[in-house]
Amino acid sequence: MAINTDSTPRSGWAVESSIVAKRTFNPIRTVVDQMKIVPHPDKAMIALSIGDPTVFGNLSAPESAVEATIANVHTGKFNGYCHSAGDVKSRTAIAEYYTCENAPITVDDVIITSGCSGALDLAIGVLGNEGDNILVPLPGFSLYQTLAESKGMTVQHYPLLADSNWEVDLEALAGMIDNRTMAIVVNNPSNPCGSVYSKDHLKAILAVAEKNFVPIIADEIYADMAFEKDSFFPLASLESSVPILAVGGLAKRWLVPGWRVGWILINDRNNVFGKEVRAGLNSLTQLILGANTMAQSLIPAMLNDTKQDFYTDTLSTLQKHAQLSYEMISKIPGLTPVMPQGAMYMMVGIDVEAFTDLKTDMEMCQALITEESVFVLPGSCFQKPNFFRIVFTAPIEKLREAYERLAEFCEKHRK
Amino acid sequence: MAINTDSTPRSGWAVESSIVAKRTFNPIRTVVDQMKIVPHPDKAMIALSIGDPTVFGNLSAPESAVEATIANVHTGKFNGYCHSAGDVKSRTAIAEYYTCENAPITVDDVIITSGCSGALDLAIGVLGNEGDNILVPLPGFSLYQTLAESKGMTVQHYPLLADSNWEVDLEALAGMIDNRTMAIVVNNPSNPCGSVYSKDHLKAILAVAEKNFVPIIADEIYADMAFEKDSFFPLASLESSVPILAVGGLAKRWLVPGWRVGWILINDRNNVFGKEVRAGLNSLTQLILGANTMAQSLIPAMLNDTKQDFYTDTLSTLQKHAQLSYEMISKIPGLTPVMPQGAMYMMVGIDVEAFTDLKTDMEMCQALITEESVFVLPGSCFQKPNFFRIVFTAPIEKLREAYERLAEFCEKHRK
Ligand SMILES: Cc1ncc(COP(=O)(O)O)c(C=O)c1O
Ligand SMILES: Cc1ncc(COP(=O)(O)O)c(C=O)c1O
Repeated sequence: MAINTDSTPRSGWAVESSIVAKRTFNPIRTVVDQMKIVPHPDKAMIALSIGDPTVFGNLSAPESAVEATIANVHTGKFNGYCHSAGDVKSRTAIAEYYTCENAPITVDDVIITSGCSGALDLAIGVLGNEGDNILVPLPGFSLYQTLAESKGMTVQHYPLLADSNWEVDLEALAGMIDNRTMAIVVNNPSNPCGSVYSKDHLKAILAVAEKNFVPIIADEIYADMAFEKDSFFPLASLESSVPILAVGGLAKRWLVPGWRVGWILINDRNNVFGKEVRAGLNSLTQLILGANTMAQSLIPAMLNDTKQDFYTDTLSTLQKHAQLSYEMISKIPGLTPVMPQGAMYMMVGIDVEAFTDLKTDMEMCQALITEESVFVLPGSCFQKPNFFRIVFTAPIEKLREAYERLAEFCEKHRK
Repeated sequence: MAINTDSTPRSGWAVESSIVAKRTFNPIRTVVDQMKIVPHPDKAMIALSIGDPTVFGNLSAPESAVEATIANVHTGKFNGYCHSAGDVKSRTAIAEYYTCENAPITVDDVIITSGCSGALDLAIGVLGNEGDNILVPLPGFSLYQTLAESKGMTVQHYPLLADSNWEVDLEALAGMIDNRTMAIVVNNPSNPCGSVYSKDHLKAILAVAEKNFVPIIADEIYADMAFEKDSFFPLASLESSVPILAVGGLAKRWLVPGWRVGWILINDRNNVFGKEVRAGLNSLTQLILGANTMAQSLIPAMLNDTKQDFYTDTLSTLQKHAQLSYEMISKIPGLTPVMPQGAMYMMVGIDVEAFTDLKTDMEMCQALITEESVFVLPGSCFQKPNFFRIVFTAPIEKLREAYERLAEFCEKHRK
C-alpha cells in the first residue's frame, strides 16, 4: 500500500492508484488489447467493430438537430449551468414523448444524464452496495460489468439462448437470484445480439423479477429501433408491480452518440422505490452534473420536430443491411449468423471444428484483420466465445466487400 | 437493510438507496434548503448567489465559440464517440496552451473530462481509497467534500486566513497531514474568496507537500483570471518534486459553464505517479466517457482564435465590479469585505455583535432575501460562518442597487 495506516511520517514518495481505479476495467479493451490490429497492407481496413453509427458518414443526425443547434447557439442562452437532474423543458419533452397509458411518466420521473452510460452509472449506483450482485445478460454490453465492478459489486451473467432469438434462459435467471441481487439488467433491443423481445417474453422476465422482488434496470437505448413495425415494447409498459429504471438516450436512434445525452425514466407505479431511491438519484446527479446544456436544449426539437422519414429511412437502411449480412454470411460454411430483429448488431456463431487453424473466436478475428483487413469483435468481448459480433451500419458496398473477404478467408481456412 | 445477507428468499419489496447515494450530499444545498427563498413582493430579486457568470446575459461566450459551433455542426463530423480520455486534437491544443518551460505538458498529460467537476471526480477517485482523507481549504468550494465523502473518504478543512488575503495557514495545514492523507486540494484563484496567491506563498504550500510526500490537486478553473497582470502562477510551474494533478476547464474563463468541458493536466516530472496513476485515470474515463464531442471540437478554436480583447474585457469588467463591491460594502458598518484579486467572488465578514437581531450568517442572509430580495450565500455553505459570499458578475447597476439595499438593511438592523 502506498498509504501506510500507521502514524509514522512518510519518508518518500509512494503514490498508488486507488482500489476503485484498479478494479475499473473494460472487458472489451482487455480482449482487444490482446489483438494485433495490423491490417493487411494491400487491403483497405473495414472496421465492423465499433458501435458508433456515425463513423462512415452514411447515417446522419436529423436536420432538426442541426437547425436547433444553430438557433440555440445564437441566443447565447444555453451556455450556463442547468439543474443537475436536467433542464425542465427537456425533461418535460422526454416525459411527453415516452409516457404511455400503462406507464405514465411525468417530468419528475425523468433525469437527464451524461449519455446512457451516465444513466446506467446512476441506476446501478443508487441500487447497489459493495458486495451486492447484479444480473446481466450473456452475451451483453460490457459496461454493466465495468460499472458494477468499479463499485465493488459482482456480476452474474444470465444466459441468452442463441437458438431462440437470444431470449433469456428464464430458469437460469431465476436460479441466480439471491438476497444480494440488487437488480436485473434487461437490454432490449440488444447489443450485441440485435434481438427484440416479444411482449410475452418480456412479461415472463417481469414475472421472475416480481416473484423474487428484484428491481429491473431496462436498458432501452435502442428503443423503437425494431425492424418489424410495433414489435418493440418498453418493459415498463407491461409492468405490474416491478419497479423499473428505464435508461435511454439520443445516441443511437438520433445518431448522435458523441453528444452524451441520456436519461433515466423512473417507473414506480407501486411506490416501491419510494422517496429514497428518487432522492438518491438526485444526490448522485450533483457529483459531476449531467449533459451539456446546449445538447440538452436540442432535446425538444429533436423529439418533436424530427420528420417521420428520418426514422423510417434509418430503420429501413439498417434492416436492408441486416438482411444482406444474414444472407451473405449464411452461405459461408462454418458460420451461423443469428438474424437480427433490430438495433445494429448481429452475432455470428463459429463452428471452430470446421476450420484447420482457427481454434477460437480470438484467433479467427485476429487472422481476419491480418489477412483481410476486416475487423469484427470476438464474442469473448461479450463473454460469448465462438461467436463474433458485426456492426452492420457501414455502407452496403463496404459490407458486401467485407463479407466477400470473409467468405474467401473461411474458404482458405476450412478443413 | 433492504437486501438481506442471509439466504432466505425475499418475501416482499424492500428497496433502499445505496450507502454511496446516502453519503453523497452537497453542503450548499443542505444550507440553502434550510432557507426560505421568498423575496420581498415589492422588490425585484437580485441573486448574487450563483457562480454562473452567464445568468445575467452581460458576459457572453467568445465569438470564436459561436463560429466554431456553427462550422462544426454543419460538417456532421462531431456527432460520434471520441476517445474516452478526449479528442486528440483538442488535448493537443490544451497541452500547447498550458505547457511552459518549468511544467512541460504534452498530449499524453491531458485528459478531457465532463466539466472541471468531472476532473475533480477522477483526480480524487484515482488517488484516494475509502478511509483515506483529503485536505481541502476552508472556506472552500463544497464539491471537494461532496466527491470525497461520496467515495467514503473524509475531509479535513485547512484554514485560510482572512486577514492575509486568504493565504493558507501553513502550520495548520502541515499539522493535519497523516498517513491516510492522499492529497491536498489547492484552489487558486479561489472560490469563494477571490484570492490569488503569490509565487512565494505557492512555493510555501509546495514545500509542505514535498516535506510530507503528499500529492496536490490544483484546482485552477479560474486560471489567468487575476486582476493584476501576470500575478497568476500555475502551481505546477513552480514545482520541484511534488506530483500535481491540475484541473481546469472552459467554464469560467470562456464563460460556458454549461458546456461541461474540463480537463486534468498531469504534472509529474519526477515520475512519482508513474504508470499506475495514469493508467488509473484512463480506466476511470471509461466509466461514462467525458465531454460532448461537439463541445470538445470547439476547444482548439476557443483557445487559439479567441481575441485578446475578449479576455481583457471580461477581466476589466470583473475588476470594476470587484472594486465597486468592495468600496460600497466597506462603507457599511458591521460588514468587512476582503478585496478580491481575481475570479468573481468576494467574501464579506459580518460583525454579528453590531446587529440587534441577526445572530448568524444564516439569519442575515435569510432576512436579506425576505426584506430586500437580495440573495447572497451564507458563509456556512463554505464552512465559514459569519461571512457571506458575493458573486459580482451581475451588471453594475444591479450590483449598485443590491448594495444600496444591503446598506439600508444593515442600517435598519444595526444596534
Ligand atoms: C446496450 C447499450 N447501452 C448503453 C450504451 C451507452 O450509450 P451512451 O453512448 O449514450 O452512453 C450503449 C452504447 O453502445 C449500448 O450499446
Ligand atoms: C473552484 C471550482 N472548482 C471547480 C468548479 C466546477 O467547474 P465545472 O462547472 O467546470 O464543473 C467550480 C465551479 O463553480 C469552482 O468554483
